[in-house]
Amino acid sequence: MATDQSDSFPKARLLLQQCLSARLQVQPATGDREAEFVNIKEGLIIYVCFLKGATESIVEKLVKAALNARLSENDDGKRVSVLDLPGDVLIIPQATLGGILKGKVMQYHRNISKEDGAQLYSKFISSCKDTFDTNNKVKCINKTVESGTYGNRQEINACLTEFHCDPFDQ
Amino acid sequence: MATDQSDSFPKARLLLQQCLSARLQVQPATGDREAEFVNIKEGLIIYVCFLKGATESIVEKLVKAALNARLSENDDGKRVSVLDLPGDVLIIPQATLGGILKGKVMQYHRNISKEDGAQLYSKFISSCKDTFDTNNKVKCINKTVESGTYGNRQEINACLTEFHCDPFDQ
Repeated sequence: MATDQSDSFPKARLLLQQCLSARLQVQPATGDREAEFVNIKEGLIIYVCFLKGATESIVEKLVKAALNARLSENDDGKRVSVLDLPGDVLIIPQATLGGILKGKVMQYHRNISKEDGAQLYSKFISSCKDTFDTNNKVKCINKTVESGTYGNRQEINACLTEFHCDPFDQ
Repeated sequence: MATDQSDSFPKARLLLQQCLSARLQVQPATGDREAEFVNIKEGLIIYVCFLKGATESIVEKLVKAALNARLSENDDGKRVSVLDLPGDVLIIPQATLGGILKGKVMQYHRNISKEDGAQLYSKFISSCKDTFDTNNKVKCINKTVESGTYGNRQEINACLTEFHCDPFDQ
């Protein structure tokens, strides 16, 4: 019996990066209008890429995993979640994470359609914001969830420390 | 017959990032000694993590793939390799890329020993430098290969664009 290999592909890929601060351009300069940016202080940058087969049902799981993973080093040198740090979150759409190298060329056949990806990305952001709104540790000291513009070229300036890449198979 | 699952694990993970410029701390400040940095301009940042089973024989393959992959956007909007751009390269050891999320905690059981990792990292750097030394496009205009210190906490300040993550199974 033939096996359906597509079942073994991940449906989303997150790249998690600790940062001391970050500044992301969300609107390039146009004519007489200056470029717009969002900023975060110490916390977590979450690069998100949705692949074929991703659905809204996996978004909550991804958000929970990302916000609760003990990746951030606190002042005592202990690894805690960004919620417990407590720190800011910057969410950045990053379709290139879905690429596969074929010879010298990146192919993006696994990536979800732009429309579906945009919808899941919005859901991802709102789910992160909901978590922050209901978590007293981050809420009381005004920690923030910022996000990049879907479909934009992502230009970020950040003082960064380390990356965690963990593909999610949902 | 039992299958050896370890054969299906990747032996190294590279994270490739386009950058407009980057500055990496290679020596933290100590006492009266100032911190030391390396800088690159437009080019490619290569985060490298070696996992159990990695050997010198895969390093050449990884370097070739990274330096020849058509990831960088040139002035005409065409995707070319960092050698053809031509651009700089910054190599950064990033052991955290080997982590697997178990519940809320990152585990690093798959990572290679520090000694073996350091040796492969050195080999990776020298192989990139050799490629640059023998490639006229990058050599003639003094494009450079810089690298981070193995074992250091990596603090980088970069104006970045996009990520490509492609696990290598060698």
